Amino acid sequence: VAEVSVNLGVNSYTIHIGSGIIASIGQLMCKMELTNKVLIVSDDNVSKLYGDYVVNLLSQAGFTVELFSVAPGEDSKSMRVAMELYTRAIEMGLDRSSSIVALGGGVVGDLAGFVAATYLRGLSFVQIPTTLLAQVDSSVGGKVAVNHELGKNLIGAFYQPRLVVIDIDMLNTLPDRELYAGLSETIKYGIIADQTLFNYFIDNHQQILVKEPVVLTEIIRRCCEIKAQVVERDERESCVRMMLNFGHTIAHAIEASTGFSLYNHGEAVAIGMYGAALLSYQLGLCKKNVVDDISMIIEKFKLPLFAPECKVDTLLPYLERDKKTVGGKTKWVLVSSVGQVKINSDVPENIIRHILEQVTHKQKA
Amino acid sequence: VAEVSVNLGVNSYTIHIGSGIIASIGQLMCKMELTNKVLIVSDDNVSKLYGDYVVNLLSQAGFTVELFSVAPGEDSKSMRVAMELYTRAIEMGLDRSSSIVALGGGVVGDLAGFVAATYLRGLSFVQIPTTLLAQVDSSVGGKVAVNHELGKNLIGAFYQPRLVVIDIDMLNTLPDRELYAGLSETIKYGIIADQTLFNYFIDNHQQILVKEPVVLTEIIRRCCEIKAQVVERDERESCVRMMLNFGHTIAHAIEASTGFSLYNHGEAVAIGMYGAALLSYQLGLCKKNVVDDISMIIEKFKLPLFAPECKVDTLLPYLERDKKTVGGKTKWVLVSSVGQVKINSDVPENIIRHILEQVTHKQKA
Repeated sequence: VAEVSVNLGVNSYTIHIGSGIIASIGQLMCKMELTNKVLIVSDDNVSKLYGDYVVNLLSQAGFTVELFSVAPGEDSKSMRVAMELYTRAIEMGLDRSSSIVALGGGVVGDLAGFVAATYLRGLSFVQIPTTLLAQVDSSVGGKVAVNHELGKNLIGAFYQPRLVVIDIDMLNTLPDRELYAGLSETIKYGIIADQTLFNYFIDNHQQILVKEPVVLTEIIRRCCEIKAQVVERDERESCVRMMLNFGHTIAHAIEASTGFSLYNHGEAVAIGMYGAALLSYQLGLCKKNVVDDISMIIEKFKLPLFAPECKVDTLLPYLERDKKTVGGKTKWVLVSSVGQVKINSDVPENIIRHILEQVTHKQKA
Repeated sequence: VAEVSVNLGVNSYTIHIGSGIIASIGQLMCKMELTNKVLIVSDDNVSKLYGDYVVNLLSQAGFTVELFSVAPGEDSKSMRVAMELYTRAIEMGLDRSSSIVALGGGVVGDLAGFVAATYLRGLSFVQIPTTLLAQVDSSVGGKVAVNHELGKNLIGAFYQPRLVVIDIDMLNTLPDRELYAGLSETIKYGIIADQTLFNYFIDNHQQILVKEPVVLTEIIRRCCEIKAQVVERDERESCVRMMLNFGHTIAHAIEASTGFSLYNHGEAVAIGMYGAALLSYQLGLCKKNVVDDISMIIEKFKLPLFAPECKVDTLLPYLERDKKTVGGKTKWVLVSSVGQVKINSDVPENIIRHILEQVTHKQKA
């Protein structure tokens, strides 16, 4: 069992990580004085596996519990589904002393978190992330949102959970492709902030792929810790926090231009990180071996380096529309060495075009 | 010209109050480094009077400006209209360095503020409240919301504006009934926190009713100051802030049970304040002259003391459903003397019933 403290003043909270730790959810929530009604938000895949179990755990701990299960997938991250959740919350009489619990991956966490942030202007929010991606990424940072038909995550808030419970054992039911997608974000943390973590991936990649609990706990703990440190310095995403977008500029363009169906987020981030590494090398910011190390670990975790289905001219407009764009310039997060990143908002378009050509080709330059 | 500072750490801002002060809006926004695109939200009544004027002021100051005008009235405070606003914001390319300006009364402020709080997880919000009610009440406190079909203000956030500009001259176009409604909230500030202000109302009630600018500026300044002090001690409405609900417990029940059409908010609050004063006297908390002083000033400002159209048994369930209810008990804000209030969550139902009988009758007990 590991714990990570996220120190954000009155918004501080603790992340509990461990094998089988979900069994303590009732006790952990009681300790936080969350003792009233609970609305659990999940999706049909996850609630089939863990819904009854978590409902029972909380009922036994004395909570009044209801479970709201949405269809799996990004389409549920909509204002339409959020409105259904508000209605259920009103009908079950949730008040400001009640809690909303997210039991699921990123979609469920973002949706439930947005409703928790806005229902009655905010009530207690508890996260039980069930995918590796959500465990390392969504459980720290307080970014909650629903999608607008014109773009993803356009309607949201910064809203911190009161408690996060990460049960490693839940990863046993996670499809392999989603495990790899989560590993993509964990690699990112190594690249942006921690060479030791990066080397830990290389040394332990076999144990990671077979979901060895001690190794997974350590990786998740360290990723949450790094993200917590970044978010603590920049809760509302003004500047420091931008480093977390390493690989995400190209990733967003790949995801959006392929209708969010061909690549999952982690796969797109893998390609985006490779692209960002190539760009860093091209600009003379890092040595060739940095690019090689990054591409090597991406491939070890069965993630793609290339998006051959994408075309440069289709990707470019999405880069410009990226919401981190300020004053018309895309802010690139670049790597100088593993563990060190820099922001550059002045990359000439012909160089970006050259990088996009490389990542949309089928082989390494 | 008067200024009130609202000190909320990184969320601090200044309220500018004065006759004709709207002419400085461009300059004030530039000083705050809000220099990008602006979406003005207004309603058809207000935009007819001031829309073009404010658009021109901001255009001349170098902003890219669009005006979005909604139908007047509570129905516009809906998620449906908020979604239209998000769409417009996306289409005009508002980014995190852009601003949303509310030009109107409480409905416009709450709606525009909710969109500002949630679009891209929050961008700069500027308030130009055009009703007295919005000037003294909505411009401090950061409470923004839209309605759900099952209840008012159920979806919202605490989100502070960057700047509030209150132009007294805009009250010249305000219908009398809305002026009185606003005066109802100003009286409340006297009762809960400031006997001097309360006496100022009594001494200057004629000048107030003819909208004498110096007197109005002073009253608005003082009300904003009092509310700022309360909010500074309790930004997220845990306890201290509850005193602002003086008169609002019964008011909400009256408004809800009459479909929000018979009485406007200020009128319902006037009846609610009289009821709360009667209750305070009944419980032995204040002397009879406190009730008399309160009812006297309410009547001087042409506001009602009674809701003869309401029935006790219709009002009671709404009191229980009030969202300030904690653990099934309604928290009553009671007055001990003008300028002094107390919270009591233990009022027996038979006494509440007795008070409701009095305020639903046509004459003083």
